[in-house]
Amino acid sequence: MQLRVGIDIGGTTTVVGLVDESGKVLLKNTFLTGNEPSPNTLILAIKTWILIKAKALNAEIISIGIGAPNGNIHSGNIEHSPNLPWKGIVPLSELFFKALNVPVKLTNDANAAALGEWIFGAAKNCPNFLFITLGTGLGSGIVSENKMIYGHTGMASELGHVIMEEGGRLCGCGRKGCAETYCSATGLVKTYAELTQIDSSKLTARLIFEKARNNEPEALKAFDLLTDSLSLLLVNAVAFTSPEKIFIFGGLAQAGNLLMKPLQEKFEARLQNIYKKTVQIQFSGLKENDAAILGAVALSMQA
Amino acid sequence: MQLRVGIDIGGTTTVVGLVDESGKVLLKNTFLTGNEPSPNTLILAIKTWILIKAKALNAEIISIGIGAPNGNIHSGNIEHSPNLPWKGIVPLSELFFKALNVPVKLTNDANAAALGEWIFGAAKNCPNFLFITLGTGLGSGIVSENKMIYGHTGMASELGHVIMEEGGRLCGCGRKGCAETYCSATGLVKTYAELTQIDSSKLTARLIFEKARNNEPEALKAFDLLTDSLSLLLVNAVAFTSPEKIFIFGGLAQAGNLLMKPLQEKFEARLQNIYKKTVQIQFSGLKENDAAILGAVALSMQA
Repeated sequence: MQLRVGIDIGGTTTVVGLVDESGKVLLKNTFLTGNEPSPNTLILAIKTWILIKAKALNAEIISIGIGAPNGNIHSGNIEHSPNLPWKGIVPLSELFFKALNVPVKLTNDANAAALGEWIFGAAKNCPNFLFITLGTGLGSGIVSENKMIYGHTGMASELGHVIMEEGGRLCGCGRKGCAETYCSATGLVKTYAELTQIDSSKLTARLIFEKARNNEPEALKAFDLLTDSLSLLLVNAVAFTSPEKIFIFGGLAQAGNLLMKPLQEKFEARLQNIYKKTVQIQFSGLKENDAAILGAVALSMQA
Repeated sequence: MQLRVGIDIGGTTTVVGLVDESGKVLLKNTFLTGNEPSPNTLILAIKTWILIKAKALNAEIISIGIGAPNGNIHSGNIEHSPNLPWKGIVPLSELFFKALNVPVKLTNDANAAALGEWIFGAAKNCPNFLFITLGTGLGSGIVSENKMIYGHTGMASELGHVIMEEGGRLCGCGRKGCAETYCSATGLVKTYAELTQIDSSKLTARLIFEKARNNEPEALKAFDLLTDSLSLLLVNAVAFTSPEKIFIFGGLAQAGNLLMKPLQEKFEARLQNIYKKTVQIQFSGLKENDAAILGAVALSMQA
């Protein structure tokens, strides 16, 4: 049996899946991404797990696809990621190739998830869409006229780092007021902490979500501010690539209609006339972790 | 002799050119776009001029390409243009086809100019670039991986209507705070009028440009605020499509280094680390009016 490996590297956890030719995730495991200055420990742990499982399944590993924050498809490196412990330029493709000696492809984690949505999820046959992940940060992937947009650098589509508020919240990228400091799980926590004066280290997005469900005014206000910011970001995104659909993915998607309904309403109200009723916002059609794994696998299948 | 017609429709004037197969503009004429509620008078004037000139040159007209604000390549209509006297949906391709009985293609005026830059100008062989026109409004065209981005609606790339300042200046599109209310000739005039309390109807961008050249503090301040806003817009644009080059075109480009030098410096300083030194801002390589005409002609040559 031949298997492909899909790896989804996140700020907190890294998920690895073994996927067969039909696109079925046979096995999956979660690793802590860790706080070490290099990815060597993580790579060793993943390598060990893959080799043990491949042997048990009597399988041959034929490719690895990786989705990682600030992953550059052109170079195979992770470049200056504000949300990972590894600083500067990390040659992750090369390191995995050395560890496992099979072809490796790497891209932005959000691009990989967008590929997963495109090939296996709700974006099937959709030539123009925008994919947004709301987790620790805000990631995005843009497909325009049946092509994933990578740009000159291979690092296009960093909507989390669109500056929305000059002189605003400090971002992990070193600048101020980036979209992801407002529109993300972390952003929601910061907003709620500001509204309540509660120490943000004692808060999680899930907790605020539960409070909002119980109609706590500050939690509802935090969601209100979140959908204000996110609707503006998405309205502006439409002025760039005019997508047909916008998919919302990631931890915050679990907030369901608390997020989606006001987001859709504010978005439609703020759209420029020429775009009204041309764009639909919906949740991703993929399970949280499988999208990124399947997307990474799809990436590894590309020439 | 076979000739193609390139038409550049602007808020104030419309320029029409007769172009031969080598891309040479043989004849050119400028028409007032006018204030009438329909384009019929303009079309009749253009038709008459074309027929007279074609007869004089003993030439056959084989195609028409049109660049117009809010021109939709999919429908051939101008749709809800805030900067033209014709409101709602105007079937301009159909009207020109009826008038002259040759194939007509229409797109956004900025997309047409970007096509001109790509085929005849400084963007030759550049697969990833952003084209910005700073005139009455702010127009833009995005080429990504060797494709012009039209999006689901055919109306992608409206960077002039990226909302930069919530509750800011009223825009022709009916919303507030759009980029073009700050980053355009009109925006520069508004800024200077605010700084000096001079009635904006007594001002032109050229006048402010001359005052700035003479080091008038308010005029310098108006340019400073313009490059603040424009650099932020362009920095955010890089986070979408990561272009290799950004071309500045249109009336404001005549301000030369008064615009370009601070723009380049602020832009580079504000870029996210991963994009630093990957993008070059430069002036368009085309003559003001010919870019749009040649772009429209190039459009009309496409299948």
